[in-house]
Amino acid sequence: MTLGKTTQAGALAFLLATVLPVATDAAPADGPPPASWRSVDPENLVLIDAKYGQVAVELAPQFAPNHAARVRALIRAHFYDGLSFYRVIDGFVAQGGIGEGTASTKDHPTEAKNLTQWPALKAEFDRASAPEPVFTPLGNADLMAPEVGFEDGFPVARDPKDKREWLIHCPGTFAFARDNDPDTATTEFYIVIGQAPRRLDRDLTAFGRVLSGMQYLQKLERGDPDVDSGVIGDIAKRDPIVRMRMAADVPAAERPEFQVLRTDSKDFTDAVEARRHPTSPFYFRKPPPVLDICGVPVPVKRAMP
Amino acid sequence: MTLGKTTQAGALAFLLATVLPVATDAAPADGPPPASWRSVDPENLVLIDAKYGQVAVELAPQFAPNHAARVRALIRAHFYDGLSFYRVIDGFVAQGGIGEGTASTKDHPTEAKNLTQWPALKAEFDRASAPEPVFTPLGNADLMAPEVGFEDGFPVARDPKDKREWLIHCPGTFAFARDNDPDTATTEFYIVIGQAPRRLDRDLTAFGRVLSGMQYLQKLERGDPDVDSGVIGDIAKRDPIVRMRMAADVPAAERPEFQVLRTDSKDFTDAVEARRHPTSPFYFRKPPPVLDICGVPVPVKRAMP
Repeated sequence: MTLGKTTQAGALAFLLATVLPVATDAAPADGPPPASWRSVDPENLVLIDAKYGQVAVELAPQFAPNHAARVRALIRAHFYDGLSFYRVIDGFVAQGGIGEGTASTKDHPTEAKNLTQWPALKAEFDRASAPEPVFTPLGNADLMAPEVGFEDGFPVARDPKDKREWLIHCPGTFAFARDNDPDTATTEFYIVIGQAPRRLDRDLTAFGRVLSGMQYLQKLERGDPDVDSGVIGDIAKRDPIVRMRMAADVPAAERPEFQVLRTDSKDFTDAVEARRHPTSPFYFRKPPPVLDICGVPVPVKRAMP
Repeated sequence: MTLGKTTQAGALAFLLATVLPVATDAAPADGPPPASWRSVDPENLVLIDAKYGQVAVELAPQFAPNHAARVRALIRAHFYDGLSFYRVIDGFVAQGGIGEGTASTKDHPTEAKNLTQWPALKAEFDRASAPEPVFTPLGNADLMAPEVGFEDGFPVARDPKDKREWLIHCPGTFAFARDNDPDTATTEFYIVIGQAPRRLDRDLTAFGRVLSGMQYLQKLERGDPDVDSGVIGDIAKRDPIVRMRMAADVPAAERPEFQVLRTDSKDFTDAVEARRHPTSPFYFRKPPPVLDICGVPVPVKRAMP
């Protein structure tokens, strides 16, 4: 066997076996037709300029309208600009905002960062289940919830008993931190950067997901989880939130546009079934026909105008 | 509520609710007693000097003796030194070695990198199940395997029908890449850096796990999964494998020493049950008493001599 041929073929087979044919940030020429894609509303698109690149987050106001309104207002007041990712725990979350327990009015003298104007929010952990066909079932059981699937591109769990549903904590999930009391979220957000911490489901208000830029969050300076809960004590070491903007406020000439494959489309369910039953010869042993809700990518396309 | 008190308490509660009291790289003063820890054999400890820091991997030769012998021989021949992480897919794997399809003898003229001396290995996807009490059951069902648990600190699945067991693909799992034919692994390794790709279980030879340094792998330059299977085409952009060593070959004065909490100890099973039934007041709603095998940390302590 020669190196070039064999190992290249191996890499290709390995990849085809494990990611969707349509992956983030680009669509192949033969991908799903335009009607199968949903354009992301710039009023729901948060752009985080981090140290290593831009992170795009789609908000899900349908799950947490008050939290979505709050984060839009914070962003428009420039609350986050110049703050930091002050608590970053490898394999768990990157938490950003004013800085737990270390901020003072002296550090942040501007009116926007005066916390008295951002009162605690009532929790929005779940909502009444959406009717079919908004919810597209994953098609197999889940370890943590009675039923899981997708809605508008977001991974969702629901309980047929109480007819409630909630966003799942997967890698890339965007949520607000809080105190012990459920109704205490104010300004601090976190984004999941590790193995899905599903035990947080329905216990924090999750209301968005990263569409692109996870790799820039993964580069952030980490805290030590054994010291001060992972808060990075040396403020100079915290990586900055350079700027956060709503895409709607970005001049059209520089506004990124995102499209998400409709999770209620046949193209999506076909892709899910192809993933469940891979036909690649790479699989010596066919994997069990069971998918992890957090391991199923929802395809995203980005186009600059 | 004041910022300092309230948000600090919130951060603490959030953390206590979600990680084990004993986390990586340090043990609290009141942690498990010495008898509950196992020292990592330096003959099984791989030290990868990556661009951003050192990654420590414990090999599991009991699961794949020929692959473990191969990687030790490659390391001792300095095969990997100066090579790169040439295929890094965010949320999936960092793959390292000579560089799929892009290496030539001109690039790597040394004898150690002559691939003819590293013939393909027979797959070691699984092994006969170890007797109890080596296997410590997780204590709940798994989505992908009949039974899951821990052996010697490694996450393991097993099938009581055929009495075979195998290492699980979790974040940090170390394995050898291969071609379509199962018996084609030679020199290339990968480490899982994203949501557990369990569909690869028992289809590739997994035989180690990262004990520390995941954050340095997360900083590696990424490839585009839509282009050439995520292989980074511009060789200058690939982050180097500066050096790989067996800890046994490192002078004692600079050899890191690791200990892993014995997963057959009461301290470990107590920690698992505490995680399954969290008592922190942070949980407004108690999570289901179900754990994800890849979300249960196995505590590690590092001590420099």
